[in-house]
Amino acid sequence: MARGERNIRLIMEYDGTYYHGFQTQDDPTLPTIQCTLEKAILRICGERVRITGSGRTDAGAHAIGQVVNFPTNASIPIDRFPMALNSALPKDIRIKAADCVHREFHARFDAIAKTYHYVVDNTSFESVFWRNYAYHVSQPLDLDKIKAGGAVLVGTHDFASFQTSGSSAKTSVRTIYHFDVGAEGGLITFSIRANGFLYNMVRNIVGTLVEVGKGRLAVDAIPVILAARDRSKAGPTAPAHGLYLFEVDYDEGQALLNA
Amino acid sequence: MARGERNIRLIMEYDGTYYHGFQTQDDPTLPTIQCTLEKAILRICGERVRITGSGRTDAGAHAIGQVVNFPTNASIPIDRFPMALNSALPKDIRIKAADCVHREFHARFDAIAKTYHYVVDNTSFESVFWRNYAYHVSQPLDLDKIKAGGAVLVGTHDFASFQTSGSSAKTSVRTIYHFDVGAEGGLITFSIRANGFLYNMVRNIVGTLVEVGKGRLAVDAIPVILAARDRSKAGPTAPAHGLYLFEVDYDEGQALLNA
Repeated sequence: MARGERNIRLIMEYDGTYYHGFQTQDDPTLPTIQCTLEKAILRICGERVRITGSGRTDAGAHAIGQVVNFPTNASIPIDRFPMALNSALPKDIRIKAADCVHREFHARFDAIAKTYHYVVDNTSFESVFWRNYAYHVSQPLDLDKIKAGGAVLVGTHDFASFQTSGSSAKTSVRTIYHFDVGAEGGLITFSIRANGFLYNMVRNIVGTLVEVGKGRLAVDAIPVILAARDRSKAGPTAPAHGLYLFEVDYDEGQALLNA
Repeated sequence: MARGERNIRLIMEYDGTYYHGFQTQDDPTLPTIQCTLEKAILRICGERVRITGSGRTDAGAHAIGQVVNFPTNASIPIDRFPMALNSALPKDIRIKAADCVHREFHARFDAIAKTYHYVVDNTSFESVFWRNYAYHVSQPLDLDKIKAGGAVLVGTHDFASFQTSGSSAKTSVRTIYHFDVGAEGGLITFSIRANGFLYNMVRNIVGTLVEVGKGRLAVDAIPVILAARDRSKAGPTAPAHGLYLFEVDYDEGQALLNA
């Protein structure tokens, strides 16, 4: 960052239905969250910036608490940023909060934990209102089995069996701090908090646990799958449209240091 | 109906976001629920039919239990109709049920009651996920006042104050059987059951009761507005995208007679 620049952090919510994922694509005609936000920043701040996201989200996946940061010389007061950017953004992307952070703050490298939610519509009839927001599974799922299977994954493990190939991650060891699943009105919501996630990790875990919930896979198979470190042993990848990046955690003392 | 024809009743759910209302428009390029369903029937039954709906819904308004009927000579078994039609319909329109009804059954004339739901997103920050499915009101609403105001409307009254002009209804007297309002997680859901509804009646009632909930209009003003039989005395029309046609009731003994 140049002298005098501020480092702005945004918390954003988006409906990913009509976007080709978070990250700008090689084909500039494909709408992405990143390029849409960068256009809004250009309009409001008059600056061409490259935003840094806490991580990519897939095409069709959503966010309730995605975090990004970018440098700016614009003199807009920080508390005006959400309203100003929202006036330049389409209605399916909203800035919920903005603050000034430490000049070295990096939304991806500094994240200490992330929480994803995944929603399954477990009703016999697929509701039109959830078609883009939940994965429809008509077969009744056994919640207790899903909970037992998920509990096996909590802790520090090599999650190679739940990583779709094509990732550049140096290690496939991650720590899941928290796994929970709850049901309400036909919707089943998975919540997974970890220090980091491999490519498609949440979708592969959910796809595997849905097999457990259906009774096609035993709970006892989960530790075997985990130990195998082999993607082909786990279940299918659940679709992107049930996935929500819910929250990203930082060391706030560090993030706001000298900001 | 010709001899041998069956009269088919469908219960349908739709997300009205991308439709110009239920009814076919003069401009045939505008997508409507009716023309989309009639196209699907043509594809599945091989017949050009005119469906009869229980009532129109506005552009952007939704349905959870819209009812339509149409005549057909197609020999498809009745229990196959939902799946067959759903295979020919876009994902935002679903047939939930089908049955054969009395040859004289008419989805609009024979309805004895209808229930509408209206959803208000009463949070300070408008969620992207509710932008097409609830009316966002950021000012906190007093639910008790709304309940008290709504209670005044229950019973048989002349609802002219809550009717948008342009209606062809012979009388503006209707009977509201049930009014209820509930809150959960920032969403306020109105439920109104009546023997019939005037043009924009639910949206005008909700728009007026939101004024009561904000404290801009006293609960005591509601009987005065009702007695005035003057649309200009009531509150604004709440937007269509919070409105759901929830259920239509028929005399089932009559509907299924000799079907």
